[in-house]
Amino acid sequence: MQTDDGQIAAAQLSEPDATPARAAPRATADIAKDPISWEGKLVRWLLRASGNPRVVLSLWTGDRVWTCAEAPVVELHISDRATLLRSCLDPHMEFGDGYSDARIRVDGNLEQFIEEIYRADGAHHEWVTRVRSVLRWIQRGGSNTLDGSKQNIHHHYDIGNDFYALWLGETMAYTCAYFPTQETGLDAAQRAKMDHVCRKLRLRAGETVVEAGCGWGSLALHMARHYGVKVRAFNISKEQIAFARERAKAEKLDAQVEFVEDDYRNIRGGYDAFVSVGMLEHVGVEHFPRLGDVIQGCLLGNGRGLIHTIGRNLARPMHPWIDRRIFPGAEPPSLRQMMDIFETHQFSVLDVENLRLHYAKTLDHWWRLFEAARERVSGMFDEKFVRMWRVYLLGSKAAFSVGQLQLFQVLFAPSRNNQIAWTRDHLYHA
Amino acid sequence: MQTDDGQIAAAQLSEPDATPARAAPRATADIAKDPISWEGKLVRWLLRASGNPRVVLSLWTGDRVWTCAEAPVVELHISDRATLLRSCLDPHMEFGDGYSDARIRVDGNLEQFIEEIYRADGAHHEWVTRVRSVLRWIQRGGSNTLDGSKQNIHHHYDIGNDFYALWLGETMAYTCAYFPTQETGLDAAQRAKMDHVCRKLRLRAGETVVEAGCGWGSLALHMARHYGVKVRAFNISKEQIAFARERAKAEKLDAQVEFVEDDYRNIRGGYDAFVSVGMLEHVGVEHFPRLGDVIQGCLLGNGRGLIHTIGRNLARPMHPWIDRRIFPGAEPPSLRQMMDIFETHQFSVLDVENLRLHYAKTLDHWWRLFEAARERVSGMFDEKFVRMWRVYLLGSKAAFSVGQLQLFQVLFAPSRNNQIAWTRDHLYHA
Repeated sequence: MQTDDGQIAAAQLSEPDATPARAAPRATADIAKDPISWEGKLVRWLLRASGNPRVVLSLWTGDRVWTCAEAPVVELHISDRATLLRSCLDPHMEFGDGYSDARIRVDGNLEQFIEEIYRADGAHHEWVTRVRSVLRWIQRGGSNTLDGSKQNIHHHYDIGNDFYALWLGETMAYTCAYFPTQETGLDAAQRAKMDHVCRKLRLRAGETVVEAGCGWGSLALHMARHYGVKVRAFNISKEQIAFARERAKAEKLDAQVEFVEDDYRNIRGGYDAFVSVGMLEHVGVEHFPRLGDVIQGCLLGNGRGLIHTIGRNLARPMHPWIDRRIFPGAEPPSLRQMMDIFETHQFSVLDVENLRLHYAKTLDHWWRLFEAARERVSGMFDEKFVRMWRVYLLGSKAAFSVGQLQLFQVLFAPSRNNQIAWTRDHLYHA
Repeated sequence: MQTDDGQIAAAQLSEPDATPARAAPRATADIAKDPISWEGKLVRWLLRASGNPRVVLSLWTGDRVWTCAEAPVVELHISDRATLLRSCLDPHMEFGDGYSDARIRVDGNLEQFIEEIYRADGAHHEWVTRVRSVLRWIQRGGSNTLDGSKQNIHHHYDIGNDFYALWLGETMAYTCAYFPTQETGLDAAQRAKMDHVCRKLRLRAGETVVEAGCGWGSLALHMARHYGVKVRAFNISKEQIAFARERAKAEKLDAQVEFVEDDYRNIRGGYDAFVSVGMLEHVGVEHFPRLGDVIQGCLLGNGRGLIHTIGRNLARPMHPWIDRRIFPGAEPPSLRQMMDIFETHQFSVLDVENLRLHYAKTLDHWWRLFEAARERVSGMFDEKFVRMWRVYLLGSKAAFSVGQLQLFQVLFAPSRNNQIAWTRDHLYHA
């Protein structure tokens, strides 16, 4: 695990799938006129249906195809016919699977390839969207009932604390950090995020806080240690809760912080603050009114709440590969969808901050730490796992970079609570 | 016009409708057991249907009725039977009209009375809501077509610049101010609001800005003078545009600021920033997608936009009396409704700030200046007008104080614009 605040030299990292020996793609040829195989024609169709990204697609047949008007910036190699056919049927799913299995290789910068696909995405034909929505329905992750949520969370978060410790940095915070400056390191930025959240909530010593979805417990412990509050923190991941409890004992905070292995739907009692950082993505939009009920039921009249979540500008299903292979049942909501939590529960939204570029930076740190530890990861799992997580981390970074994903911090309070901050000045003068 | 930054001594103001000679209401009597007239019984029904506010209702018959469990805090006097009957049929409409005509008097604090009514409001019976929604439909203000908007805006904003100059302070800004501290005066707070908006938009010298709904031009001139931008400012109020043009000439800013007497729907061209402060309330929710089209059409790729508007936690029609007598066609939107502007136009919401308590304070300043000038207002119009505007100003203040109304500043940008502020720190370190 890197401890130098996540900063590792670029030289330590070889670009994944870099192929220095390969010639740059011919930028000016109009491939449409060249005589090519039927597989090549299929590739041409695939590129056009993907909005003509600046990508060369090369095949085991030797065909090299691109349809962009500008010079291609990256080359994708498909190793066999079955992979090509699957890519045409469902490119989003097959890219992730094919890359993981090394049936698809990227010659050049993987991140740039993914950004390129996102940027071209707007040009998609209507029917591609329709076919996809059917495929997504078939491939959808598990639903977030009480049991379904447990399975979904287990799938991602219970694969080993040691693995996560390799690349999350010393806080083990697995959510977007807040970088006061672009130069801030990962661990400092994770702590700055926790302070940012605590200041938004205006926590005062002696107050009570309930946390929904507490991960490995870093925020709960931070709130207790630095703000003198009493915390009940809920999580349904067995491994995370076990880790968090040990941490609380080791830091002698177990009298102040109680880690509860239970679903947010079972939160009861009265608290001065409700906080949830990185859980809403897993709640499922259809459960938002219920979450609103839970918060309304547990927040005192002068209470404050904060939800930190990955979001979208416009409601869209999760990327199908992420939904199936990485985060089953996850669904980043739009602000409109989030209103189901607040609107009918007499909450006022006080402050929304969009930190999407901070998440791109956070993911860049994680990816660098991950690559630096890839031999250990490969030993823990296998090479396929390494490639799978690489495409997940870099794909997520690209999604935040190009504005496909957002990161919303939403502060709210019961509508009649007038004990709210007069301005946001206090957030910036610690 | 007050020039000492809106601060006037409380002693200058006598409380409207204060009645020192009147005895405090008997707090403990259970009026339900007292023998009273049928008018008194009707009043009892009215109070119960209003959620049992801490109010005594007294009649021309001598009946004094209250239904609250706690001690009443204010007394309302109804002078005749017709007013009572109308109050039962449509209390929200009749209170404004009856108060304006002095058929209804408030013995005690008018603002406290209105706050009390708002606080009790949640207890309303379902059928009261249904009857109201029918009445509201009958009484609704004009629609916001191109012609409708012109009539609606003319109704409120063209009643005389001299009148508004009496109580808006020296900036003539007729929107929520931003008070860096609770002690900031009105004029300083209006200028601070303009700076807050300009900083959120990160205006740079030489950039171009389009403003939709520019009032008397204070923000357009402020942006040009202090941020070196070129502004095109749209407004359909004849009187406001004439005033703003004169001001631009007098301040030698007419080469930099163009005031256009036209509807926001006719905005064309390409701009670095779009700003609209206090117009959205008049746009009408059904026109939000069109407004989104207009903004998308005129905002450059690295542009930023800001909309400052009165809003609501949950969509509800405008208060019927305000809609009919003060602001025809006005409709403060919920955040969910505002998403119709952003969602389908590839905009990312970057920052939402809720300043409702700042609007309560702004309205308090305006009301104090208005009361200090009430003899001149009465000379310009009549006593009924004075009472009508008093109940409008204090009623609005109460609505913001109790959380019935919100004030949202929403900053947004095209979703692929990465030239956005890294943090909000710059807003607080001028």
